[in-house]
Amino acid sequence: MPPLTFEDFRPGHFATLGPRHVTRAEIIAFAREFDPQPMHLDDEAAKLSMAGGLSGSGWHMCALAMRMQVDGFIGRSASLGGLGVDEVKWLASLRPGDDLTLEVHVDAARPSKSRPDCGIVKFRAEMYNAAGTRLMTIVSNGLMRRREPAALQSESDA
Amino acid sequence: MPPLTFEDFRPGHFATLGPRHVTRAEIIAFAREFDPQPMHLDDEAAKLSMAGGLSGSGWHMCALAMRMQVDGFIGRSASLGGLGVDEVKWLASLRPGDDLTLEVHVDAARPSKSRPDCGIVKFRAEMYNAAGTRLMTIVSNGLMRRREPAALQSESDA
Repeated sequence: MPPLTFEDFRPGHFATLGPRHVTRAEIIAFAREFDPQPMHLDDEAAKLSMAGGLSGSGWHMCALAMRMQVDGFIGRSASLGGLGVDEVKWLASLRPGDDLTLEVHVDAARPSKSRPDCGIVKFRAEMYNAAGTRLMTIVSNGLMRRREPAALQSESDA
Repeated sequence: MPPLTFEDFRPGHFATLGPRHVTRAEIIAFAREFDPQPMHLDDEAAKLSMAGGLSGSGWHMCALAMRMQVDGFIGRSASLGGLGVDEVKWLASLRPGDDLTLEVHVDAARPSKSRPDCGIVKFRAEMYNAAGTRLMTIVSNGLMRRREPAALQSESDA
């Protein structure tokens, strides 16, 4: 099967990914390495935090969303890599035992100005828990190879 | 020593953190778990990527920046947690053996409207390698407890 290319990413809903189960041990392991704050490590301390109980690092949520997208479609795409992130909103807490679903939307897709063999796809990934609560939104931009020869697009590529 | 509170975060340069050495094994371990793309895992495949050689995941860079900030000041602050991210720019690749420095700036600090006991601090963290190349910028917003009683600020808190 040929890889997904720029042309396959049209504005609209793209994919529903998951569920991905997250364990307490994973939450604590990530926090120990990258975000060792009491609210991510210790139940008693976490009771006093905004979340009112043990919660995962927001950066753990981002990393999990990345993994779900690599498994879901980036791994079989002609992606050349991420360019950056327009926005991350942490809306509700990641909890031990959560089963995460990711709704991936293409917000925009345009030819690259500097790389005529590529296009830039703006993705919006919304993370939900099993209760349907939205935990996070990430809007990011990825560079994706094109299937069509660059020359065909040169007129519209301002 | 009392923790750093909202009042301690004034617009301007706040801290220089690091250096933090990053090994090839760390880059591969993060990628295996969260971003298993060939450019982050395999030297031969990575030669064909945008980076032209093995590079770390952009989300690994974010996680490392978080750890540097927790060690550097968040861990001794009255931070209640991150609210979200305005922007991440991945500008150059994280490489095995890099020694990372983080320049942390306060871009803005304002009282919270919904939580009079807190303020919102907008941080801009710039990550550099030892050669002085900027690898990444993250602009993020954190909720920070105030030292002064809320009542003192009620007039200006629109």
